[in-house]
Amino acid sequence: MRTMGSPMDQSEKSQLENGDVFTPRFDANGLVVGIAMDADSRDVLMVALMDAEAVARTRETGLAHFHSRSRGRLWLKGETSGHVLKVRDILVDCDQDALVMLVEPQGPACHTGATSCFYRRLVDGKLEPVAG
Amino acid sequence: MRTMGSPMDQSEKSQLENGDVFTPRFDANGLVVGIAMDADSRDVLMVALMDAEAVARTRETGLAHFHSRSRGRLWLKGETSGHVLKVRDILVDCDQDALVMLVEPQGPACHTGATSCFYRRLVDGKLEPVAG
Repeated sequence: MRTMGSPMDQSEKSQLENGDVFTPRFDANGLVVGIAMDADSRDVLMVALMDAEAVARTRETGLAHFHSRSRGRLWLKGETSGHVLKVRDILVDCDQDALVMLVEPQGPACHTGATSCFYRRLVDGKLEPVAG
Repeated sequence: MRTMGSPMDQSEKSQLENGDVFTPRFDANGLVVGIAMDADSRDVLMVALMDAEAVARTRETGLAHFHSRSRGRLWLKGETSGHVLKVRDILVDCDQDALVMLVEPQGPACHTGATSCFYRRLVDGKLEPVAG
């Protein structure tokens, strides 16, 4: 497995950036960053990590899966709450170590009950609720 | 420093999720995920990691800073290209281990010259350019 610490030659870098082959660049722990964005509101809903299994299951099922580090296993977002994230599109970044999933949430995305995990913003050094 | 691997008691968890105190929850490597989103188009522009220094410098200067793992140092996005990201707002997630920066980009955000690093999407197992 290629990791972020591995040196890349120019042709490998060009293939990664310009090619049409999806080759997720997992880090030393086998993870890439997965971002779920509401396809309609375009709010970022949540961010978590994905291993190869989570990427594969997401593609197979059309539902966002992540790797839970605390549980040490594959995690279907919404497996308990039912608030799954239907994946409409997957965007891949230049060096293929981050994915943006455009999703249709089937309920609040945050375990706190908030629509998005990003329900606070930093104002003058304090956290304030995001309006709306 | 608290890390993602540390156990949290309920009052600590509640403070983290409900409090107004900004206490970024850095991982074992001292990093949180930093996402730059165009404040106007609401496209995700780039994703990188931030250490405490990058968070502090971003707040002080209003320009997005990250921690470059390959260079092993603080990285002002655009320090070479001039394509800095002016930060309009910082959103913080429930467990304070990810930040969404709403930014005004001063040029293409991607080192490839693309507006966003997320210039491809996954279609039938292949990467295709994102339209527009």
